[in-house]
Amino acid sequence: MRTQVGIVGAGPAGLLLSHLLALQGIESVVLENRSREYVEARIRAGVLEHDTVDVLIETGVGDRMQREGLVHEGLELRVDGHGTRIPLTELTGRRIMVYGQQEVVKDLIAHRLADGGTVLFEAEATSISGIDSDEAVIRFTQDGEEHELACDVVAGCDGFHGISRAAMPDHAYRERVHDYPFGWLGITAEVPPSTDELIYTWHERGFALHSLRSPELSRLYVQCDPGDDIEQWPDEAIWAELQTRMARAGWTLKQGPIVEKAITPMRGFVTEPMQHGRLYLAGDAAHIVPPTGAKGLNLAVADVRVLADGLAAWYADGRTDLLDRYSETALKRVWKVQHFSTWMTHMLHTFPNDPDGFFRRVQRAQLDYVTGSRAAATSLAEFYVGLPTIIRSDEEPSLREL
Amino acid sequence: MRTQVGIVGAGPAGLLLSHLLALQGIESVVLENRSREYVEARIRAGVLEHDTVDVLIETGVGDRMQREGLVHEGLELRVDGHGTRIPLTELTGRRIMVYGQQEVVKDLIAHRLADGGTVLFEAEATSISGIDSDEAVIRFTQDGEEHELACDVVAGCDGFHGISRAAMPDHAYRERVHDYPFGWLGITAEVPPSTDELIYTWHERGFALHSLRSPELSRLYVQCDPGDDIEQWPDEAIWAELQTRMARAGWTLKQGPIVEKAITPMRGFVTEPMQHGRLYLAGDAAHIVPPTGAKGLNLAVADVRVLADGLAAWYADGRTDLLDRYSETALKRVWKVQHFSTWMTHMLHTFPNDPDGFFRRVQRAQLDYVTGSRAAATSLAEFYVGLPTIIRSDEEPSLREL
Repeated sequence: MRTQVGIVGAGPAGLLLSHLLALQGIESVVLENRSREYVEARIRAGVLEHDTVDVLIETGVGDRMQREGLVHEGLELRVDGHGTRIPLTELTGRRIMVYGQQEVVKDLIAHRLADGGTVLFEAEATSISGIDSDEAVIRFTQDGEEHELACDVVAGCDGFHGISRAAMPDHAYRERVHDYPFGWLGITAEVPPSTDELIYTWHERGFALHSLRSPELSRLYVQCDPGDDIEQWPDEAIWAELQTRMARAGWTLKQGPIVEKAITPMRGFVTEPMQHGRLYLAGDAAHIVPPTGAKGLNLAVADVRVLADGLAAWYADGRTDLLDRYSETALKRVWKVQHFSTWMTHMLHTFPNDPDGFFRRVQRAQLDYVTGSRAAATSLAEFYVGLPTIIRSDEEPSLREL
Repeated sequence: MRTQVGIVGAGPAGLLLSHLLALQGIESVVLENRSREYVEARIRAGVLEHDTVDVLIETGVGDRMQREGLVHEGLELRVDGHGTRIPLTELTGRRIMVYGQQEVVKDLIAHRLADGGTVLFEAEATSISGIDSDEAVIRFTQDGEEHELACDVVAGCDGFHGISRAAMPDHAYRERVHDYPFGWLGITAEVPPSTDELIYTWHERGFALHSLRSPELSRLYVQCDPGDDIEQWPDEAIWAELQTRMARAGWTLKQGPIVEKAITPMRGFVTEPMQHGRLYLAGDAAHIVPPTGAKGLNLAVADVRVLADGLAAWYADGRTDLLDRYSETALKRVWKVQHFSTWMTHMLHTFPNDPDGFFRRVQRAQLDYVTGSRAAATSLAEFYVGLPTIIRSDEEPSLREL
């Protein structure tokens, strides 16, 4: 079996890359460990940046998102029972869309298959070789049989636990990690959201977040110990914690059956570089951001847009410059987003090692400032809706490079 | 000996308080451990916020500052040899003044004495009592003799190591501390500044800062280990480190004789509350900020303005509400400034425990963002020139309280 671009992983990164390449007339095959049902039900992120929304619409895969997604023009920062709305769109001219990652995945799979694309499910990639030569080979098993996919390049879109990253020689890359001393317990509940916009909550018992999935489904999170077992958190305990942390006069948190719950550790992780030979990493295979900034999915989309442009220039004109700079270009955004995600995380979570309450008071002052200063709120907003491009100082004439 | 307000410490806080009270017809006596020569030569901060400048001018003690101080409308952020100017005044409509703290002290002493005020030098306060009654007593020694100063209220303006804070009962306050794993080695050099505006420098060997004092005197700092002995830093080593960290193509760091050098640890420290009974703390007696934001002196000025207003209302009308809220009002600004100083410190210093270089890369991305985004640069600038008032969300109509 041969194709131009072998893509490992049918998450948003792999599927969108396959779609963008197809639009340029470039063939690809997507290999996915799991079943179609599994990936279409896998609950992950749900906030799409302005440019993520635009690329889905512009490339023809945004119809259902435009019908069913929830356009948001603001978010709430809630601190000890007091809420302030950050008017994202008023401050930046851009908006976000709340639309589950699994819905994006469903739409992309449907389009790829309808367009004659090849997405192989329950096809487990077991090795990647030849990335230092002109032809790479991905070995995979499907229905108990071993297969080979030969290709010009491999796109590793198989997430943090995938095999792609480790297919690079050890000396060729470095992993940089920052672990946080807390995790998120996330639930999906069958209850209409108690809010029209996301609510990011600081409380001395810890962070909480009210997000949404649809008019019928709420998505909520509480900061927890990363070592907690989900069994320690019966449904009533989760609701009690949410009720305490999110309480605001005149506002009611509606409860409903919890249909999914899981604990995720919080981590920052970056692979440098994100490419070696004929192998290019994208999305979670290359980097993880703490979820506080809602950036993981959007960063994956930004990666594959850069990669698709590079591959298009190479196939069309034999140009290698964009492809050679893929990692460098992508990492500029990755580290900026890592900064933003770190900043949001530090501002909103309680930290275990704060005996004097010094850091908590700094956080309260920071939140008071961010919710009171137009400049600070705009800074939060422009990152949250998504930096339009890699901002450089020469684009802002008043910030003069010396 | 009796007065209305007994002030411990003839630094900027104590002297300005005495001056502001005199303008309201309120008597005070300032007690200072050290000699007049000593306090007038003690080198400390040198950046005055917009409102600090205004209060000195408006109350008639700003003449020499206006002649000799250096008005600055911008600062430079320099990162690995690349500089970006943050146009403070263009972004905020406000400016800063570079004028040494010891010059402010000289001006205030001269004015207090000319106005018939009492400032006792080499008068060492040894105890403060009666703060829970209607009359407080400050005992002090001068020329080997013991004296008592009876007063309505005591203003503790005697710095971090002074006796005032400890005069509050143990149960009445709490100290909140954050130590940083580095210090600043500061030098004064007899050489014209190599720059017209302050240069804040990020370098992988550590932070450096080029500040100014006058057309003939430069003030420079390098991040160092807080445990370093100044003997470990011969002058040539200091200049070599400054030359390495601050290097920029087309720019030359001029060297000259070092006439003063010292190492200061970096600390955040806040006393809560800042008052008990008839005792009110102001400036470094109540709080320390890391010097990165150039806020220590300005915070002291903000404190005594609030305190002077409270005392004026009390003496004029018997109103106690402002005085009762002194600590609460002052602490709002203190924690905001603590946030800003922490933010600047974290952005610009290398941290010893960063084995992966993760945090360094986040810093680089943050600096790239701050020097490239108008919103982020404005946020830095508005804090640097000084928040005009305690910013509250109801002053910014677009940030709607919910």
